Amino acid sequence: MTFSVTILGSSSAIPTPTRFPSAHVLNVHERLFLVDCAEGTQMQLRRFHIRMNRINHIFITHLHGDHVLGLFGLISTFNLLGRKQPLHLFAPKELESVLNFNVGVFTDKLSFPVIFHPVDPNMSQLVFEDRHVSVTSLPLRHKVPTVGYLFKETPSLPNIRKDCIQQYSLGLADIVKIKNGADYIAPDGKIIPNAELTFHARLPRSFAYCSDTLYSERLVGLIRGVDLLYHEATFLDADVDLARQTGHSTALQAATAAVGAHVGKLVIGHFSSRYKNISQHLQEARNIFPETYAAEDGQVYAIPEKFG
Amino acid sequence: MTFSVTILGSSSAIPTPTRFPSAHVLNVHERLFLVDCAEGTQMQLRRFHIRMNRINHIFITHLHGDHVLGLFGLISTFNLLGRKQPLHLFAPKELESVLNFNVGVFTDKLSFPVIFHPVDPNMSQLVFEDRHVSVTSLPLRHKVPTVGYLFKETPSLPNIRKDCIQQYSLGLADIVKIKNGADYIAPDGKIIPNAELTFHARLPRSFAYCSDTLYSERLVGLIRGVDLLYHEATFLDADVDLARQTGHSTALQAATAAVGAHVGKLVIGHFSSRYKNISQHLQEARNIFPETYAAEDGQVYAIPEKFG
Repeated sequence: MTFSVTILGSSSAIPTPTRFPSAHVLNVHERLFLVDCAEGTQMQLRRFHIRMNRINHIFITHLHGDHVLGLFGLISTFNLLGRKQPLHLFAPKELESVLNFNVGVFTDKLSFPVIFHPVDPNMSQLVFEDRHVSVTSLPLRHKVPTVGYLFKETPSLPNIRKDCIQQYSLGLADIVKIKNGADYIAPDGKIIPNAELTFHARLPRSFAYCSDTLYSERLVGLIRGVDLLYHEATFLDADVDLARQTGHSTALQAATAAVGAHVGKLVIGHFSSRYKNISQHLQEARNIFPETYAAEDGQVYAIPEKFG
Repeated sequence: MTFSVTILGSSSAIPTPTRFPSAHVLNVHERLFLVDCAEGTQMQLRRFHIRMNRINHIFITHLHGDHVLGLFGLISTFNLLGRKQPLHLFAPKELESVLNFNVGVFTDKLSFPVIFHPVDPNMSQLVFEDRHVSVTSLPLRHKVPTVGYLFKETPSLPNIRKDCIQQYSLGLADIVKIKNGADYIAPDGKIIPNAELTFHARLPRSFAYCSDTLYSERLVGLIRGVDLLYHEATFLDADVDLARQTGHSTALQAATAAVGAHVGKLVIGHFSSRYKNISQHLQEARNIFPETYAAEDGQVYAIPEKFG
């Protein structure tokens, strides 16, 4: 059961010869969730042979071009390909009128519905849930209303303890009920609590996407214990004043968030084009959080299944 | 003295793993003219190490996303780089309000002026001229108002025949006047016509850009004798009905235009993603116009200097 993130774009606003601006694909059990959709997203999807028609949900953080300007071309391509299934779009409310204007200009009548879900950037709340994944918004601190997203694998149904199956001679109907949370009532009327009968074999995996943002204590509290944290690191700590002025983080601040939130792995990205390479970003972050990786376009970060 | 065209995008509306949508750079004496500006144009400029700050003029053919959706990101990047010099934009008038809307949404206050020049898609007229190049619009036949562009190198000043310099003992002041078109009046009052004193060593080179369009006899008349013709060839002749329905040309039709206009070289492009490769396009066109080449992203077509 796949749970992985593919980096489509790792630059900040100005692309470089090897880095496109922000876009990321989360694969949860072969269903794809696009997170940000900068200019060139559809080309990166093609280049990395990612099947566009598996994308039914797009999550946009904020209305800056380097996070959203690929959306109109992608929707146009979906339309030219005769897409039928609905496309769900989650973003701060400001995007809706801009989307409608550009879709009106750049596409013929759409062959599929685009369903816009406004996300309040000031609070953390559940914005999407199905039987594979839940998505919770994360308030970020940027120059415009900006929201990150926390993806959590939906817990699988628990396993029944083998010894209990024998001990209570559980039948299939009992097992289904117990897996769905019921206690077991024995023939003699004794109630065996669900917790005594079950255990969770597979633990839900999680991914938090935090770009663009200043360092935020509140955010650290909301992403505690995630398996994979993508945190922007536009600048080096030597340029912390510039980071503050522009509403961005340094590599040190990204790593500080990772340490504070006790995450499993940190991926830094959204690098300013002012830096020729990002070896210093990596060193700065690894000094305090060794499990840091620097995003490169095309990389895949897979979280293996976890067993409890 | 360079006169070359770099292909930035050779696909039609749907990009492929190796082809971006339409954008082209004409280099005239190291001054760059961008022709169409699809999504990803700024990334291709970076990738092919083309200096963005040499672009002062952008020519857009029509308001379809696969010819224009890179414009807002490029303008944003120019702004982030602190550009000061004016940017001249030539396009059918419909683009202006769309441009203003998106520049308003996706950039802070611009650090440079964008000067919009509406181009009438129904007639052929001079739309730009400086001492290096002139640009004439070409009415195209597509589903929306669409205009091609004919770029002609501005003729250099003529050379003075060496034998005349000796025969008439011409001084520097005389030579400057004659190069600029004056006849020579000898001390004895005899008038020597300018044509007898001068010759054009270097002939002006030309490039015509024709995308998107149906085959057009009128167009053939307007591009007669160009050195390099870019003509779209979205489809194969087997799909000529589809070409007609969608306002596009086949490879055969592109080559027919090249034959009719007696051009030097034909580059076909804007290939539909339905074709796995474009060898058949090339064969179909070369059957009637052998000097045909199939555009690939990153290719440079240079026209060598021509001497009369």
